[in-house]
Amino acid sequence: MSESLNPAQIQRPHSRLYKLLLAWAVLATFLSASAFYFAISGKLSEVPTSDIPKKRNVIFMVSDGMGPASVAMARNYFQYTQKDNLTNLFIDDYFIGNSRTRSNNSFVTDSAAGATAFSCGLKTYNGAIGVDPLGRPCASILEAAKLMGYHTGLVVTTRITDATPASFASHASFRSEEDFIAEQLINFEDAHPFGRTVDLIFGGGRCHFLPSSHPDSCRYDESDLISDAKSSGWKYIESNEEFKNLRLGKNVSLPLLGLFSPTDYPFTIDYHDTEFPRLNETALTAVRALSEATKDSENGFFILVEGSRIDHCGHNNDAGAQVHEVLAYNDAFEAMVKFANEETDVPTVVLSTSDHETGGLSLAKQISKAYPDYLWYPEVLNRAKHSIEYLSRALKAFDGSKKELNEFVDQDILGEKGLGFVDHTSEDIKDIAHHVLTSSNRLSVMQSLRAEVGWATHGHSGVDVNVYGSSNFPEILNPVVGANENIEIGHYLRDILGIDGQLLEELTRELRDKFGDQFPNV
Amino acid sequence: MSESLNPAQIQRPHSRLYKLLLAWAVLATFLSASAFYFAISGKLSEVPTSDIPKKRNVIFMVSDGMGPASVAMARNYFQYTQKDNLTNLFIDDYFIGNSRTRSNNSFVTDSAAGATAFSCGLKTYNGAIGVDPLGRPCASILEAAKLMGYHTGLVVTTRITDATPASFASHASFRSEEDFIAEQLINFEDAHPFGRTVDLIFGGGRCHFLPSSHPDSCRYDESDLISDAKSSGWKYIESNEEFKNLRLGKNVSLPLLGLFSPTDYPFTIDYHDTEFPRLNETALTAVRALSEATKDSENGFFILVEGSRIDHCGHNNDAGAQVHEVLAYNDAFEAMVKFANEETDVPTVVLSTSDHETGGLSLAKQISKAYPDYLWYPEVLNRAKHSIEYLSRALKAFDGSKKELNEFVDQDILGEKGLGFVDHTSEDIKDIAHHVLTSSNRLSVMQSLRAEVGWATHGHSGVDVNVYGSSNFPEILNPVVGANENIEIGHYLRDILGIDGQLLEELTRELRDKFGDQFPNV
Repeated sequence: MSESLNPAQIQRPHSRLYKLLLAWAVLATFLSASAFYFAISGKLSEVPTSDIPKKRNVIFMVSDGMGPASVAMARNYFQYTQKDNLTNLFIDDYFIGNSRTRSNNSFVTDSAAGATAFSCGLKTYNGAIGVDPLGRPCASILEAAKLMGYHTGLVVTTRITDATPASFASHASFRSEEDFIAEQLINFEDAHPFGRTVDLIFGGGRCHFLPSSHPDSCRYDESDLISDAKSSGWKYIESNEEFKNLRLGKNVSLPLLGLFSPTDYPFTIDYHDTEFPRLNETALTAVRALSEATKDSENGFFILVEGSRIDHCGHNNDAGAQVHEVLAYNDAFEAMVKFANEETDVPTVVLSTSDHETGGLSLAKQISKAYPDYLWYPEVLNRAKHSIEYLSRALKAFDGSKKELNEFVDQDILGEKGLGFVDHTSEDIKDIAHHVLTSSNRLSVMQSLRAEVGWATHGHSGVDVNVYGSSNFPEILNPVVGANENIEIGHYLRDILGIDGQLLEELTRELRDKFGDQFPNV
Repeated sequence: MSESLNPAQIQRPHSRLYKLLLAWAVLATFLSASAFYFAISGKLSEVPTSDIPKKRNVIFMVSDGMGPASVAMARNYFQYTQKDNLTNLFIDDYFIGNSRTRSNNSFVTDSAAGATAFSCGLKTYNGAIGVDPLGRPCASILEAAKLMGYHTGLVVTTRITDATPASFASHASFRSEEDFIAEQLINFEDAHPFGRTVDLIFGGGRCHFLPSSHPDSCRYDESDLISDAKSSGWKYIESNEEFKNLRLGKNVSLPLLGLFSPTDYPFTIDYHDTEFPRLNETALTAVRALSEATKDSENGFFILVEGSRIDHCGHNNDAGAQVHEVLAYNDAFEAMVKFANEETDVPTVVLSTSDHETGGLSLAKQISKAYPDYLWYPEVLNRAKHSIEYLSRALKAFDGSKKELNEFVDQDILGEKGLGFVDHTSEDIKDIAHHVLTSSNRLSVMQSLRAEVGWATHGHSGVDVNVYGSSNFPEILNPVVGANENIEIGHYLRDILGIDGQLLEELTRELRDKFGDQFPNV
């Protein structure tokens, strides 16, 4: 048959195929070269993700206060409990880079400046909530995303008004202005210049939403933000039963406000599944609800998921509580990765990092002048039944006799029902019984000495923190593979959400106009 | 013209082109997909480097004792001296992953087990030099590479008989057997079963090569390893003048033994360029010499370059000396990257990691019971003129009057010629003058308090350490991008050197046969 065709006819289809093939080869070579480049260099000025569908979901996870040593400690602890020296945490396999955390005014950031680096993509002063170094509001990527048509969520285990979530959806000169932050988060009486920018909130911190006359309130005024939220369309829940009724996302209507605790959640080590939802459950419920809400939209969702209280364990120098907070965060990361891979076709990024390290944790502590041991003891942490916060509160609340107090300290605080020591002395018992109101640091020192882990401060430290990532479109992660400044994480989130830098500038101007003299230098 | 050809003739060239193009496109697509996969997953069982020429150079760099906080501290210090908050270290841009460091018998490794994880690719007990958990010798990648025809080198700033270099070219039940290690390193009296496996050595530790009657010796016997080395063909040098005469590699003959100090080098902060070669110079001289020696060979070279004394600063809790050791290591890494990119066409890998962290360093230290500061002070380190090791030795050696001692402590130890304090008191002076023989830890505590950096131990800690990499064939790095167990670094080095696992097993058997009952359980 080929003989009957003239050469031109034969050539044409080949020519077309040839061109297609050439284009394919050239494109694939380019992609290959750039992927190798990104794999190694890790850094880019432009995001090479233009071929990925524009509808995207971003799950940004913050492990507040989790430094490299926190991860190694939780992993070693897990290895100890599993009796397997080489088993790792789920999150370990998703390690892709690190982040440098310094703020505008210090080598050691706080969570407010740390979160604003992510939310506004700029370095600012410690304490600043969504404001620049001069204290002027800056539009956040969550706010911009909402105005572009994304759905948005905030899921934390601390007060929802605490620095990290606050910096994504509110603006304040100082992080302590939590009443004002609460008002903006739910747009109470038009407190937020852009209106309501959050569709789903799960966390603690109910006290800033209740009028000061309410027994659980910590507000300075009589504003009842919860009543107002309900009447302006929010569904509101606060019990674990109500949360269970959401059926992990199958029964959710937005906007949804879930405030499960008057202040922070208890630590993971201190509560049962029946009392509070776990972070993996709240996060999964939230992403499913946001995914469902955006299924017919051109835009996906942006959500912040924070393992908030890893940081608090650092502040308390409580290694026994911290391993459980890190493992709970690891579970939440796993749930998000599985959601991205199994439950959605929308390009979905799960990106996890910390704002800073807390406590100056070391997996070593020299306990005498003799040449130090090269080891530490996870079994000490494994015997702890409660956090130091829980135990020191229990001690303060104890109202028995002196003899009963000694027994209580012996068994409920230091012994098997408390920190699980098996070697505490009558001197130890006496010491704690004599310092009922200030036991926290003493308990921490006793636990750390036995576990041989070190803490340098009850504040933050300046070490670089880890970055983990996963996506159902893996190449979208390339720009954050390798080393990052914390603001580059913010720029990356902005870019993959498709937020134009100019739009952010316009929104920032609008914010400042509308806030007016509520902020300095505007 | 085409009209004159018959269809079969026309088709054939296109068909060939078509096949070529198809192959190109498929290959590039595969490479692209795998590069993206490697970029994200970071982990592989097979090295996808079969297309890279088999002649390869491997520059393996170990930053002994450098944890994540050491890097951040040196970077912050550099930013402080440069008055630029966002300037980074050269090495920062080459961050590609991390390494988990635990040994076979502890969550906290020592340098011997840490180096054996790299050299033999197995976990062993703390103190083990190139032997397995039962104490049986294991063939190292350096030894196998040498036997395959590679040239090899060891460049360090500590004793060349210290744990890290020792684990690559010798075998000992305990790291303290440095006399025996020295004998194997240069194959003194056929001490090494494989003969001489090292072509170039730069470091300290001359004392283990000198007969015990020599004033600089630390050997237990009268063996004169240096004389023997010379008569068996080694060129030997020990002064900086002799090193300068090598003209950074232009004037080198192999084998070359350079032992520039009786024990360890002094710390970088304590010596001038005229006294000792710097690590970037010894490393550059070495890779150029090894490159030249292998220019007509089918095989390239393997070299270990160690920033050995970062670890010693950790042991001494000496932050002021450590920032200079890290910056010197950063310079050496830069020199190696530039060599790989500018001076050779042979595929060359520069891979850098640490064996472990030392000191439990934190970039924060709480100095009172008040709420802690969120900062630390690099300016304190910038004022230090000498290491604590140097100053405590100077204090021990001081032989003046008591009045002169106080002045010496005031100015030469604590003041402007020493640690550079501007706020030390007469009590401080008295305290140090009363503890002339044990001043080291006191000086460290005084410096750390002022700088507000924390140390948890004079030993090692269990935090994960950073991995940095660069290559003129970047895709060769993909298998170590992301998270690694330390033994996986060893496996990677083995694989890119093209060393067959079976060959290593055979060499291990041969080692054990020849060493015989010098080792237990063989």
